[in-house]
Amino acid sequence: MIPVVNSPIIKDIHITPIATVDPPLLNSAGVHAPYALRTVLEIITHDGITGISEIPGNRDIDLALAEARNILIGEEVFNLNKIKLILTQKFGVESTLNRGLAPWDQRKLVHIFSAVEVACMDIIGKVCEKPVVDLLGGKMREAVPFAAYLFYKYEGAGGELGNSTDPTATGWDAARQKSALNPSEVVAQAIAMCKEFGFTSIKLKGGAFSPREETDAMLALFQAFGPEVPLRFDPNAIWKLETAIQYGHEMEGVLEYFEDPVRGQDNMAALRKILKMPLATNMCTTSFEDIPGSIRLGSEDIILSDHHFWGGLRASMTLSGICDTFGRDLSMHSNSHMGISMAAMVHLGAALPRMPYALDTHYPWQSEEIIMGGRFKFEQGAVAVPQGPGLGIELDKKALERLHQNYLRCGLTKRDDEVEMRKLNPDWRFMAVRW
Amino acid sequence: MIPVVNSPIIKDIHITPIATVDPPLLNSAGVHAPYALRTVLEIITHDGITGISEIPGNRDIDLALAEARNILIGEEVFNLNKIKLILTQKFGVESTLNRGLAPWDQRKLVHIFSAVEVACMDIIGKVCEKPVVDLLGGKMREAVPFAAYLFYKYEGAGGELGNSTDPTATGWDAARQKSALNPSEVVAQAIAMCKEFGFTSIKLKGGAFSPREETDAMLALFQAFGPEVPLRFDPNAIWKLETAIQYGHEMEGVLEYFEDPVRGQDNMAALRKILKMPLATNMCTTSFEDIPGSIRLGSEDIILSDHHFWGGLRASMTLSGICDTFGRDLSMHSNSHMGISMAAMVHLGAALPRMPYALDTHYPWQSEEIIMGGRFKFEQGAVAVPQGPGLGIELDKKALERLHQNYLRCGLTKRDDEVEMRKLNPDWRFMAVRW
Repeated sequence: MIPVVNSPIIKDIHITPIATVDPPLLNSAGVHAPYALRTVLEIITHDGITGISEIPGNRDIDLALAEARNILIGEEVFNLNKIKLILTQKFGVESTLNRGLAPWDQRKLVHIFSAVEVACMDIIGKVCEKPVVDLLGGKMREAVPFAAYLFYKYEGAGGELGNSTDPTATGWDAARQKSALNPSEVVAQAIAMCKEFGFTSIKLKGGAFSPREETDAMLALFQAFGPEVPLRFDPNAIWKLETAIQYGHEMEGVLEYFEDPVRGQDNMAALRKILKMPLATNMCTTSFEDIPGSIRLGSEDIILSDHHFWGGLRASMTLSGICDTFGRDLSMHSNSHMGISMAAMVHLGAALPRMPYALDTHYPWQSEEIIMGGRFKFEQGAVAVPQGPGLGIELDKKALERLHQNYLRCGLTKRDDEVEMRKLNPDWRFMAVRW
Repeated sequence: MIPVVNSPIIKDIHITPIATVDPPLLNSAGVHAPYALRTVLEIITHDGITGISEIPGNRDIDLALAEARNILIGEEVFNLNKIKLILTQKFGVESTLNRGLAPWDQRKLVHIFSAVEVACMDIIGKVCEKPVVDLLGGKMREAVPFAAYLFYKYEGAGGELGNSTDPTATGWDAARQKSALNPSEVVAQAIAMCKEFGFTSIKLKGGAFSPREETDAMLALFQAFGPEVPLRFDPNAIWKLETAIQYGHEMEGVLEYFEDPVRGQDNMAALRKILKMPLATNMCTTSFEDIPGSIRLGSEDIILSDHHFWGGLRASMTLSGICDTFGRDLSMHSNSHMGISMAAMVHLGAALPRMPYALDTHYPWQSEEIIMGGRFKFEQGAVAVPQGPGLGIELDKKALERLHQNYLRCGLTKRDDEVEMRKLNPDWRFMAVRW
């Protein structure tokens, strides 16, 4: 019998916070800061193999990652079940916290385990000389479709210029339009984005303006693109139930799905009984702990998973199995991200047994990249699955250092869209339910 | 970037039905035939790697496997998601059939996919030079604990001698006792089995004699072994609800769990509200399609999974995730099996994040083996995880051929314990609910 080769052992873990230019995109929580924060993890084995991953940037989570680093050195890369147990024992208390009313997830355990798992899967793929998708059961599709992710947007393009209204600012859409603040500007953004990237589904992040204005934007998109282009709309859980019922009825037959119109599983379940269209969520059902309530109440049709928040790629496959078992659909949520997360999302997306909906991505809104060869390309709105072993990408160390310097210089330590908005409008306050 | 090595491609699939000597063990469906049937699958890749698996033997499923063989040749071994889709498209209609009142599962899709998946995982492990447990996230334990699986038993030991009452028959327990038909003989069997294999949990398969007699056997085991040895009892879903309530109350504080006392999720859920002990099942919740009902009704505490019936090893890990999500426990069911299934069960068992209960296995009741090096050893009731790549075992082709000749000679084509019982007692009839 052939003896087993020694398992790769974790020798070191590098944790690098970075800041990448982000335009002033609006949501219910305020406006994006001039930089989006990410944290890049490099796991290095004793035999010199490196695996990489990327999670949303947050100093508290970075500090917890540093604690995790100390207890993970010496562990075997293949032993992810054991690594999960170790991290659960260390960070378990945080893991049971609900993400609460915060507009984004700040739970430590799922972020840390996701970061570690994806980097280890990258290493495992390299050891086995197979792409990560093959570690998840193999490809169901050669390329993974994404949707155009529209945002209301102030003038400016983030970065050095900040979220001023400086009309000289540049950035993905700045060359085409200074701002997107009304239905016709939203339609113009959609046309530009679909033309450039070939997207065939469209999502608008709402929650920034009144339900009347945002519903009008969706109706304008429907008029511009017709019924062949699936439309999704996400008020960011900021509407009252009666508001969602009123405007939801106007969008029946217009939306492919209605994402987080209201806050909480109870409200979602009540709305779902009334509206004749699928409801999707990444805010009311956001963890395995939320699943029993979701099933009991029937709070949504589609779970927008996110491997950063659900504890990695294998956990996301388990979530896919849960969705199949209970007759739910699965799609994917996104935050501002770089190419490492894109690669992980594409490997996972390629392995999903069913993919009825194009995935979300903020990727077109970023202009920088930290992987060799530059940014991923969209072909007809889809990203081809990388062919190489592991994630099939390589870290660009110079770019990483440059964006790390951005991080040190910009002074941001966590995402806080409310603070950013108050720089522009001092009276503005985040409200969990506004309209 | 390192190019990916070519994926192993299925070149051929060998399907070999075998018959292995089985003693006359009793259950609610009758008595075991003199031979237990298994089917062995060998998948051979173009580059000469062989993966093996084993499923319950049944000519109808063997014929379906032969159909599956024709459509799977040429597929990539790593592409199990796609292979599952192909098989679902081919055998989907059968997959949605409930297993019905039959005492054992005869659904084609899950058997076939399980056979193919385990053999492919064996190949994947060999390609990656890692044991199968590492493909499931790595070892949580070095050895997997099993329970003593007691049976009521007629005299005789199966095989050539048949299920006669010939007192010269030999077999695992025949040297120690001719039969096990009453509480004191059950206790003697338990003592002998625990002494020989080191088991520290005990299960009795019931459904053969009256509730009074079988309850007395459990009470006798409790008296003999004391509260430190967990006891389980399985009436094979043949009791009425009122019977299970009456005798169940007698066994509160005696049983670790009560397995399939009644038939159907409704009856299990009703009983679970009344009895103060966990209920387990491998008969009322037997597929992913059954899970929503199980959760809605609350029909059991423990699902006794079986990778042969739940569609393989990764599906079993998904089931484990579902159980974790909904606060259920997971353990393992068994049928008469050889060392290939034992290896698969041990790799899976080693990867399970939690293992609160020792697993079931019929393995001590078999005396033959089809893997090189002979039979697995129990150390203190547990089987060590094989260390080699893949399943870590190798097929003994001579033994396989010998047991295949048994198959051809014995004339059995499927399991039918009722027919066997009627050879001894022509008036006997299977009843889905007897007492």
